[in-house]
Amino acid sequence: MKKIVALVVFLFLSQFLKAENGYDLWLRYHPVKNPSKLKTYRAAASELIFPASSETLRAAKFELTQGLRGLLGMSIPEKQTISKPGAILVGTPVTLGLLKGLISSEKLRSVGREGYIIQTLNHNQKRVTVITANTDIGVLYGVFSYLKLLQMEETVANLSIEDKPSISHRLLNHWDNLDRTVERGYAGFSLWDWHRLPDYIDPRYKDYARANASVGINGTVLTNVNANALILSKEYLAKVAALANVFRPYGIKVYLTARFSAPIELGKLKTADPLDTNVKAWWKAKADEIYSLVPDFGGFLVKANSEGQPGPQNYGRNHADGANMLAEAVQPHGGIVMWRAFVYDNKVPDDRAKQAYNEFKPLDGQFKSNVMIQVKNGAIDFQPREPFHPLFGAMPKTPLAMEFQMTQEYLGFATHLAYLAPMFEETLKSDTYAQGAGSTVAKVIDGTLESHILTGMAGVSNIGNDINWTGHPFAQANWYAFGRLSWNPEASSVKIAGDWLKLTFSKDAGFVEDARSIMMLSREAIVNYMTPLGLHHLMGWSHHYGPGPWIKDKERADWTSVYYHKADSFGIGFNRTSSGSNALSQYAPEVKAKFENINTCPEEYLLWFHHVSWDHKMKSGRTLWEELCYKYNKGVDDVKVMQSTWNLQKGKIDKERFEQVKSLLAIQFKEAQWWRDACVLYFQQFSKRPVPAGYPKPAHSLEYYQKLEFPYAPGI
Amino acid sequence: MKKIVALVVFLFLSQFLKAENGYDLWLRYHPVKNPSKLKTYRAAASELIFPASSETLRAAKFELTQGLRGLLGMSIPEKQTISKPGAILVGTPVTLGLLKGLISSEKLRSVGREGYIIQTLNHNQKRVTVITANTDIGVLYGVFSYLKLLQMEETVANLSIEDKPSISHRLLNHWDNLDRTVERGYAGFSLWDWHRLPDYIDPRYKDYARANASVGINGTVLTNVNANALILSKEYLAKVAALANVFRPYGIKVYLTARFSAPIELGKLKTADPLDTNVKAWWKAKADEIYSLVPDFGGFLVKANSEGQPGPQNYGRNHADGANMLAEAVQPHGGIVMWRAFVYDNKVPDDRAKQAYNEFKPLDGQFKSNVMIQVKNGAIDFQPREPFHPLFGAMPKTPLAMEFQMTQEYLGFATHLAYLAPMFEETLKSDTYAQGAGSTVAKVIDGTLESHILTGMAGVSNIGNDINWTGHPFAQANWYAFGRLSWNPEASSVKIAGDWLKLTFSKDAGFVEDARSIMMLSREAIVNYMTPLGLHHLMGWSHHYGPGPWIKDKERADWTSVYYHKADSFGIGFNRTSSGSNALSQYAPEVKAKFENINTCPEEYLLWFHHVSWDHKMKSGRTLWEELCYKYNKGVDDVKVMQSTWNLQKGKIDKERFEQVKSLLAIQFKEAQWWRDACVLYFQQFSKRPVPAGYPKPAHSLEYYQKLEFPYAPGI
Repeated sequence: MKKIVALVVFLFLSQFLKAENGYDLWLRYHPVKNPSKLKTYRAAASELIFPASSETLRAAKFELTQGLRGLLGMSIPEKQTISKPGAILVGTPVTLGLLKGLISSEKLRSVGREGYIIQTLNHNQKRVTVITANTDIGVLYGVFSYLKLLQMEETVANLSIEDKPSISHRLLNHWDNLDRTVERGYAGFSLWDWHRLPDYIDPRYKDYARANASVGINGTVLTNVNANALILSKEYLAKVAALANVFRPYGIKVYLTARFSAPIELGKLKTADPLDTNVKAWWKAKADEIYSLVPDFGGFLVKANSEGQPGPQNYGRNHADGANMLAEAVQPHGGIVMWRAFVYDNKVPDDRAKQAYNEFKPLDGQFKSNVMIQVKNGAIDFQPREPFHPLFGAMPKTPLAMEFQMTQEYLGFATHLAYLAPMFEETLKSDTYAQGAGSTVAKVIDGTLESHILTGMAGVSNIGNDINWTGHPFAQANWYAFGRLSWNPEASSVKIAGDWLKLTFSKDAGFVEDARSIMMLSREAIVNYMTPLGLHHLMGWSHHYGPGPWIKDKERADWTSVYYHKADSFGIGFNRTSSGSNALSQYAPEVKAKFENINTCPEEYLLWFHHVSWDHKMKSGRTLWEELCYKYNKGVDDVKVMQSTWNLQKGKIDKERFEQVKSLLAIQFKEAQWWRDACVLYFQQFSKRPVPAGYPKPAHSLEYYQKLEFPYAPGI
Repeated sequence: MKKIVALVVFLFLSQFLKAENGYDLWLRYHPVKNPSKLKTYRAAASELIFPASSETLRAAKFELTQGLRGLLGMSIPEKQTISKPGAILVGTPVTLGLLKGLISSEKLRSVGREGYIIQTLNHNQKRVTVITANTDIGVLYGVFSYLKLLQMEETVANLSIEDKPSISHRLLNHWDNLDRTVERGYAGFSLWDWHRLPDYIDPRYKDYARANASVGINGTVLTNVNANALILSKEYLAKVAALANVFRPYGIKVYLTARFSAPIELGKLKTADPLDTNVKAWWKAKADEIYSLVPDFGGFLVKANSEGQPGPQNYGRNHADGANMLAEAVQPHGGIVMWRAFVYDNKVPDDRAKQAYNEFKPLDGQFKSNVMIQVKNGAIDFQPREPFHPLFGAMPKTPLAMEFQMTQEYLGFATHLAYLAPMFEETLKSDTYAQGAGSTVAKVIDGTLESHILTGMAGVSNIGNDINWTGHPFAQANWYAFGRLSWNPEASSVKIAGDWLKLTFSKDAGFVEDARSIMMLSREAIVNYMTPLGLHHLMGWSHHYGPGPWIKDKERADWTSVYYHKADSFGIGFNRTSSGSNALSQYAPEVKAKFENINTCPEEYLLWFHHVSWDHKMKSGRTLWEELCYKYNKGVDDVKVMQSTWNLQKGKIDKERFEQVKSLLAIQFKEAQWWRDACVLYFQQFSKRPVPAGYPKPAHSLEYYQKLEFPYAPGI
């Protein structure tokens, strides 16, 4: 007895040796601590009936048994039939015939190809739990969902869950280069060890797939949109196929970025003209080759005629010509093309914000049925806040996919705590009025507004080879939340934050409440200390690190800051009303009317749409200049609140991550002040008004901030 | 009782959830499994008397208590005095007065500043264990040594260990750039997250320091020898200081590479002439600034006038002028300068192998007392086998530090299993005959041959931000072995291999024997499939990946392969005898005589020193051509042996690392065949002789191998 107690203590203590390094993400499967819950859960998991003949079912079974072992500290015995209460039955009606009598086929039909059902029911007076779906991948999603209930210590006695995704293509976009650098990557090198692929399979690949599947992500674009044709070579396709093999059991398809000039670079053709017969044939043969190696290859993502990338316009063709040519190549294999609407040209003498609409709107209806146009949430480029992109609702005949950015290119890299789901939610809930009130962006994206079957949401990945995947422990939340929102674009960012915290850190109610308040405060804090009131594109040159409102006179005007803020002695802001660039004309009349009127335009978009006098009276009663100062200071103060709230969590979570986040918040506070001081000093040159009393004085002169250089800011 | 048993099972099972990812290196502190050993160890660790007032002692105490918790599953109670048998006493005579009566001051004196004593003894009829030293860092080394005994499950009942390092400077050289790329780095990005330093301290930094201290490494050069002056700027020095603060408790000093032209680039001076007053003053002020931030800064490592790096020769000065100028700057603070002898110039019309000697030998005696000349093990560049560098023994008035390379630039990157300690050992045991027989390189390095106090050994790091630090699980062994050999250059590579295996994988005797045989076979296998019989520098252009014996006609002849192998219709090899470049004249007469004579020259160096007829009869009875074919095939066959031996280990160690190594060996086998086939086909063009019967046919034509391209081979 004494020995056993000693052994208990031994094993218990040895648990603590493993520091929390964040590698396990939200799939930690730590022991359920509440004894009565543990007892209930164990009773509800007395035996497992789960014939698993496919790779996906084996993955699901592995996950379930591993998860139960961690959570409940037991190996669940496997049975062929129900022998006692507490059995868990897992499978499709095909893989487990028993289920046919238990779950109606109507009910099953309603969850579709990827949905699942979790149902507790009585069978021969025995209470059992059923996890079922129409497909193996549905079963896997159901298993993750069931494990999540246990992880969150929710009640599992009376479950009746039916769930299915609202969007068919839920994709990560990796901006990963073949040399393993990552464009706008702040969490180390690329996960893809191209050099040692296809023969060496890093164990991380599987954990990456598990994490994605657990939040419903079903595709991944492996390569940078600034594309390299080499990925389409025979050597690299073998490597791609090896990754696809790892991801396949988890329902994740691989996609590649297609460099439009690949027929020239790789195929040695003289042209990449999409209407050229040889070019078409080259892409068709290339697609055939890819599918021979990766039978379930997802398709191509293309950035064309933007920021120096080649495209159909090089040959006098339009985006539809280009997209359709690729679409034809992958169509016989069931592939799709995601063609990006992120196009703008310094040589076009029009507001950059208007250019995507101008180019794409006229093409509505001209794209093949397996093409989606991938549109960033806003019309500029992933700023802390942008009004929704005017293309949403404007191309009813074309499926539009949403492109969000998880990597924090303009939101403090992997240093600032920025929970992005409220930003995603803000866009998704925006009303385009395309078909009257209630025509939200979410409904455009999920296909319900315009009856599209092909639907998609893409998230630019914030994942690298750092141990914790995302650099900042809280940046994991953006990966998690993206997955959840891509499954259900109407999901609540608050709810997602709470779930993520419980899964990732602790179920302590006080901790969850406090940490969630930090998360929910974080994005608005960044908006305020970087780009309040609709300001945008004020960041440092090229590396995008830190403030640079003074950036001007560069080779491209549309890459400067002055292009966007237009500060002068009168005021500040970009006039996009009818008296200005008239970008507002691209929105539905209801939206335009609201934004056009300076009195009804929400103040958070004020300077996005209006050039406003420094003395303009804001709703607060302050002048615009005073409000600007107020907002910059509010942003900094909110970071202080985040810090003090975090400091209260000491001891409630593991020391490692507590300290990591604490250090990072301290940097964030420093950098928030830097943004505030640099921007206020800079804009004060134009406003020529004093900073209202009560705000701290800048630590340095404007000249000091302007002279700062960061030759090795990360992200390339 | 039932509950307790269940809990035991629970906790026991939950242990297995943590896959072995290699992060913990040789410091895993897994539970001692042998029950009688466990009992003995616990009895011998009944209480701890360890007052710890310094950071180093606190680090030692943390390590000891954590280690005992993991190994023995218990928290060792702390006491002020010995209350029962099994007490562990830790400290210096200053920090724990009790020790004065237990360990004689003579004995303590003998272990010097960094050595330690572990002694079991009876005190008032109680058996106690003493870990003591003259300094806090000695205590830390003693603690690691004690933990290692337990990790290896050795007997600790009667310990009487006195140990101290033979070399004063035991340093890692990181070739890490400020953008986090690593020159010849094959394990991901640099550990140093410069962007988030100094405020964010990655938890890895401490684990890095622990790992180093555990093998006695006491310094680290943070930056690439192809240096960037920016590291000497105020901003970066603050980052350096933050790292130094993490490393200091572990006895690890930081060093930086000094870009010779920094006074121009950073200081805006017009010259970097080492004899210029302003230049001297700049470096002096810079050193003062560094020491104000890092009081124990180690000093500078310099690559000058080599491969494009600036240096004193740009100003008509010599290496001594340059080194002494820097040495004067750091001298008042106790710093040192390590000046690299890796210099060669394409414009010098002499054998590259001779140039370092030619430049440095005449300067012997002209260096300041705080300068070491850092010499690579061989005269070319980290080839799989090189004869020892002729400078060893040739500069008796100058301390020479050894530079080994752990990163496998020419030994298969992080893909091939190459245990390098036998190679290090081979060099260290080589006899220079500088002061007669027995004047080994080890004795030059450890200062005993020429009575130097300043001594050093540097290892070019193979560490990156991969989870397992080194990419290949077995590459960790090279880090470990380097540390052990830098502490004791006479240590045995076989013994070190066994220790490392036990600490890192398993103490299973069969496993250790088999895995050690793989390790001990590995380096010679690589020599054979890449560069047998003294061949060298046959690798692919620039990236150094794969075979490239055909490399010629490049901008620098000394970067081609034909410069080195000189294959022609007569034979192959570089004549470095008196009828050739006479590089042999740089060795002591005994060495020269042995190598000069084709009959006494060891065959492993044959083609390094001789141009030999294809028909030359080897000791085996085979002709040179046949022997070459034999060796290339032997290398491949040995990898096959490594594979089959490894396959037998399934189930003896964790699945994760078993599979990783298995995959990597499969790649190694493929690449070994590639080397063999490409080299044999290439050399056959000159030998015009058939490959002897019985060897497999090449898979491809020579042209195929020559056309292979690897634009994204890692390592920059």
